Amino acid sequence: MFNTFGNIYRLTSFGESHGAGIGGVIDGCPSGIDLDMDFIQQELNRRKPGQSRITTPRKEDDEVQFFSGIYEGKTTGTPIGFIIWNKNQHSADYDNMKSLYRPSHADYTYQTKYGIRDPRGGGRSSARETIARCVAGAIAKLALRQRDIRIQAFTSQVGSIKLEGSYQDYDLNLTEDSAVRCPDPEKAAEMEELIAEIKSKGDTVGGVITCVITGTPVGLGEPVFGKLHAALGHAMLTINAVKGFEYGDGFDAALFRGSERNDRFFNDHGHINTHTNHSGGIQGGISNGQDIYFRVAFKSVATILMEQETVTQDCEDTILKARGRHDPCVLPRAVPIVESMAAITLLDYMLLQKTHEF
Amino acid sequence: MFNTFGNIYRLTSFGESHGAGIGGVIDGCPSGIDLDMDFIQQELNRRKPGQSRITTPRKEDDEVQFFSGIYEGKTTGTPIGFIIWNKNQHSADYDNMKSLYRPSHADYTYQTKYGIRDPRGGGRSSARETIARCVAGAIAKLALRQRDIRIQAFTSQVGSIKLEGSYQDYDLNLTEDSAVRCPDPEKAAEMEELIAEIKSKGDTVGGVITCVITGTPVGLGEPVFGKLHAALGHAMLTINAVKGFEYGDGFDAALFRGSERNDRFFNDHGHINTHTNHSGGIQGGISNGQDIYFRVAFKSVATILMEQETVTQDCEDTILKARGRHDPCVLPRAVPIVESMAAITLLDYMLLQKTHEF
Amino acid sequence: MFNTFGNIYRLTSFGESHGAGIGGVIDGCPSGIDLDMDFIQQELNRRKPGQSRITTPRKEDDEVQFFSGIYEGKTTGTPIGFIIWNKNQHSADYDNMKSLYRPSHADYTYQTKYGIRDPRGGGRSSARETIARCVAGAIAKLALRQRDIRIQAFTSQVGSIKLEGSYQDYDLNLTEDSAVRCPDPEKAAEMEELIAEIKSKGDTVGGVITCVITGTPVGLGEPVFGKLHAALGHAMLTINAVKGFEYGDGFDAALFRGSERNDRFFNDHGHINTHTNHSGGIQGGISNGQDIYFRVAFKSVATILMEQETVTQDCEDTILKARGRHDPCVLPRAVPIVESMAAITLLDYMLLQKTHEF
Amino acid sequence: MFNTFGNIYRLTSFGESHGAGIGGVIDGCPSGIDLDMDFIQQELNRRKPGQSRITTPRKEDDEVQFFSGIYEGKTTGTPIGFIIWNKNQHSADYDNMKSLYRPSHADYTYQTKYGIRDPRGGGRSSARETIARCVAGAIAKLALRQRDIRIQAFTSQVGSIKLEGSYQDYDLNLTEDSAVRCPDPEKAAEMEELIAEIKSKGDTVGGVITCVITGTPVGLGEPVFGKLHAALGHAMLTINAVKGFEYGDGFDAALFRGSERNDRFFNDHGHINTHTNHSGGIQGGISNGQDIYFRVAFKSVATILMEQETVTQDCEDTILKARGRHDPCVLPRAVPIVESMAAITLLDYMLLQKTHEF
Repeated sequence: MFNTFGNIYRLTSFGESHGAGIGGVIDGCPSGIDLDMDFIQQELNRRKPGQSRITTPRKEDDEVQFFSGIYEGKTTGTPIGFIIWNKNQHSADYDNMKSLYRPSHADYTYQTKYGIRDPRGGGRSSARETIARCVAGAIAKLALRQRDIRIQAFTSQVGSIKLEGSYQDYDLNLTEDSAVRCPDPEKAAEMEELIAEIKSKGDTVGGVITCVITGTPVGLGEPVFGKLHAALGHAMLTINAVKGFEYGDGFDAALFRGSERNDRFFNDHGHINTHTNHSGGIQGGISNGQDIYFRVAFKSVATILMEQETVTQDCEDTILKARGRHDPCVLPRAVPIVESMAAITLLDYMLLQKTHEF
Repeated sequence: MFNTFGNIYRLTSFGESHGAGIGGVIDGCPSGIDLDMDFIQQELNRRKPGQSRITTPRKEDDEVQFFSGIYEGKTTGTPIGFIIWNKNQHSADYDNMKSLYRPSHADYTYQTKYGIRDPRGGGRSSARETIARCVAGAIAKLALRQRDIRIQAFTSQVGSIKLEGSYQDYDLNLTEDSAVRCPDPEKAAEMEELIAEIKSKGDTVGGVITCVITGTPVGLGEPVFGKLHAALGHAMLTINAVKGFEYGDGFDAALFRGSERNDRFFNDHGHINTHTNHSGGIQGGISNGQDIYFRVAFKSVATILMEQETVTQDCEDTILKARGRHDPCVLPRAVPIVESMAAITLLDYMLLQKTHEF
Repeated sequence: MFNTFGNIYRLTSFGESHGAGIGGVIDGCPSGIDLDMDFIQQELNRRKPGQSRITTPRKEDDEVQFFSGIYEGKTTGTPIGFIIWNKNQHSADYDNMKSLYRPSHADYTYQTKYGIRDPRGGGRSSARETIARCVAGAIAKLALRQRDIRIQAFTSQVGSIKLEGSYQDYDLNLTEDSAVRCPDPEKAAEMEELIAEIKSKGDTVGGVITCVITGTPVGLGEPVFGKLHAALGHAMLTINAVKGFEYGDGFDAALFRGSERNDRFFNDHGHINTHTNHSGGIQGGISNGQDIYFRVAFKSVATILMEQETVTQDCEDTILKARGRHDPCVLPRAVPIVESMAAITLLDYMLLQKTHEF
Repeated sequence: MFNTFGNIYRLTSFGESHGAGIGGVIDGCPSGIDLDMDFIQQELNRRKPGQSRITTPRKEDDEVQFFSGIYEGKTTGTPIGFIIWNKNQHSADYDNMKSLYRPSHADYTYQTKYGIRDPRGGGRSSARETIARCVAGAIAKLALRQRDIRIQAFTSQVGSIKLEGSYQDYDLNLTEDSAVRCPDPEKAAEMEELIAEIKSKGDTVGGVITCVITGTPVGLGEPVFGKLHAALGHAMLTINAVKGFEYGDGFDAALFRGSERNDRFFNDHGHINTHTNHSGGIQGGISNGQDIYFRVAFKSVATILMEQETVTQDCEDTILKARGRHDPCVLPRAVPIVESMAAITLLDYMLLQKTHEF
């Protein structure tokens, strides 16, 4: 269950790290959307490992094949089936992992839950699964673009190196200029330095991604259990390695008084506006037309190239030494995934909002 | 839409702050659960305002009336309808709020989304709605108790006063001893002092609630979009005033290396165990049998007894001065709400897990 | 589970025959609908037993109490909670039924499924549950009326007495003139005669209800598993005592050739129209703007006032002799229930259709 | 929307008649099911056109390719992605249909609903879509087999030639012996004669399929809106060309008295049993352990090789003359589709039933 995300615009995904491929079905896509294939490919490229010296050297040539739901370059409103074929299915690499449980991976929980698992590369629990989300996210972005809604994420923290300012202090157009996808060039350089060092040790490091959504109309969000930020939080928490989500003032909100942080309304040349946006663009679970912004915490990923104690499937103590390749910091690659999940959620809520217009 | 929460154990709630009452329907409750009415009432009492000098003086006498789904004191498996009648429906109190938008409240977004709203006490957007969750949560707790699953939440931060240790450093049985529901008596006293001071000014303050779930079996959680922590996060983010959610190491995870924070497995007298629990009891979205723990950030609530600039519904600048009563800090009352949403989610996932046993 | 019906406009119902009452929550109702309370009451009256000599003499004074979702006489878009209190809770009447299984009733299956049941009047399996549907149906009708969509059902068969013509051969405005709700006065008289005779014997008889929906726009229906007629069929098959559903030509369609029954298109003064409507207003699961019509088969209800062999809960052979009152033919009372389920389904699909407009 | 069917065991399908292929994702499949690939292929073969002289001569070599969810021949509990590649994508054949609306086809409703459609072979509205259901159905059958649940459908009527007896009067093992899939050899011969004659004229004919499910435990079905027969009816009504559904006594039930048709319980050597099974194995929406049986009405399919009046997309009167190939009677090929939808529904409800065991 639960390989489907969304209410109206729905992604159902399938696939394991080392099976035939990762794919999915997108249902509920509005008809008549021009599918810009170059844009979609570019989005997949952003998620691809091996984009720079700081990431995993695995070269995946991720190209999507669409099966359905498209006619003469446009969406038809029928389900869009697709796959990204796996190029690397060398299961031999994983033979030694077949019978042991990697620390902080899902091997143990999958095996106990299902009584069986595909051990090759983590199987279904691999982050490679997120590539299906980038396909659905890219199409959602194309649709949202028609309504001038824009979603931009960036790396705001790696280890202890963090951007101290608000998203408004940076030129987000610089994000893609750095390998680490951080719009502050100096901090970006520091982050890259840190990641390179960690990579050389075979270790990994976590961080935070900030995401900003501009151009949303007032009214997206469904009280009480479908609050817009709850849907966004849910979306982010389904991404591998995510440990936390906050929007608007987030955890910092605990520190302040109502009198300090209420967003006061004022008459802005005949339109209702607020002096501040501590709420993060959402009030009572419904978008208020201000920028929506949130932060997503990622742990350091569990695959490290250092020896680790662990147990075999038969509960015998053993030592795991992973071989070959690893990704010291997923943050740069996770940026398009965060954007994709936000885009899917936003489009879904745009379509849901239509149901109120009677 | 979306006044329903859960997949199998489902709460559909209804009601406004100053309508006839707040109620709901619980569907999918296992049959044969003994309904301990005293326990249910006690849970409602924990959520009730006016429990101590630090909270709002409103005296709500919240008693639940059950309509269905119960026979001779036991659940029958059919839907449980219920209501908590509103005692206070003096709409006159709210006449002056009818035509203006309170800052950081949902008045503006509701009005724009629906074109109409019940302005009395915030209508549907009032936190009074959460009382229905406490009924469903209390019943879920009664069911989970049969499986030795226990859920305990406590106030771990108010303003800048915070518990520095892990939940394991405290005796959680002390939680209910303090008005603020903090298991550290010294910190509790400080928090109460702070809240009393803030109350005297007519202001409000935020904080953090920590929640711990013990006794869960291995295997709860549905990859990939139904990860257990995503469901818990979603549940928490639907609670009024919540701005953030983190589990396990949470946002702190960003700071550490994989080599520092992987939870290494070992053979613990013939059983698989981990040396640490940075994962927060969930790996790959599936419970691993360790304690599940998470933190929920609350902003200071928006209703303050100080003058605030705002606008009328017709976009004219005006001054709002709320009268009478206010709750300077919702944290203590939110503790049972956090527990309730966790209990509903856990029971739901226990029932979902059954679908894997074929 | 499954006490909720609908996707956007959703009814969650609760209640047992002899509990506190029957009620529900309507979620997803468009805001701004004027609630004509007289109309709603009139719809409940149509479902009420004891309307004439041919039905059960039970006099239920069914009045709905609304709890929420309404402000100054209009719907607000928030959930509408409601109850119809049960007047008759004399459980003593049912003491003798507590320990036995009534033939062709749900006592045995409920007891086996849940291990417990409310035996008074059939508990949750009683047709009294349908009153909640009539409330949601009445509100749906009020909304659909704004779009000039009209739903009319009538009794087209009782036992072997049946209307041979198409719905177009009758003046459906005559439906409410006869106690049996049949628009053909002669057949209506025959049906009433038959029902009176069957009633005098303590027996029951089945029949068929035909339903016609006019004014639907082109485009309602969601391929492939949400075809409009599949949703209507599902809706009808959830009504107590229903054994079959057919739309358009229905089972008769088996007898004819494609060349005889294809609905040929033609240019009707500049608009696309069809010469015939064997399809029943739906093609490929999507409404085509023609009248939608379908037929629903009801068995004779199981409660008869004649002696019947059966078994006790402990599997001992026994004789059941029901006392007091019974309904010889539910068809007349089922007419508004059929209409209500059709109205709920139609409004739901009208709202779903909005999600295609991007 | 709605390209997903099921609650726990869920099929999401995609694909058009002349696109890359027809496929889907099966979510919620129990882990550890041995996938008998020969059996699955055999089920696809049963649905294949061109199996005998009476059906369409199109030779489709339908073979399924699985993408995921399987490890070493067993299901893993993760989603099963699959495709059946289309061999025939000669869109030129359909050029003349691109701009006109075929009578009683979905061309007009799709075009109006979505503003765009894939005109090749009916696109998404083609019955070729049902092949995905046969894959999910075959896997469901393999799972149900482990619980000794068996599903058998057969052709019981073609045009006016019909089996008069109950399903119990026939040896259902003979079903596959005749091209028309009718277990009565004499009637089968008559039906084949009729179909051959109709085929020679380029015309089509409808019929009825009867389906029997044996071995179901007591307790499947979810009151009140998830009644087992409502789910089965919904499932059947989503199959192309289906116009009606009835279970147990069905429409005939209208003719009889309660005293004639109540299923009386008796003590059958210590077990509760019924003398008759007019209920069709379901009481109050819940299976009672008796055989479940139902009938599904199919209209004659709309594609005929005779001239027909119709209109172009621009509403101009024109004549349609379909070329080449057609299927005079879909009944034989629809038998495995009916079985598949029944199998999917049954497995889904078996898994749902688990949620009551707490």
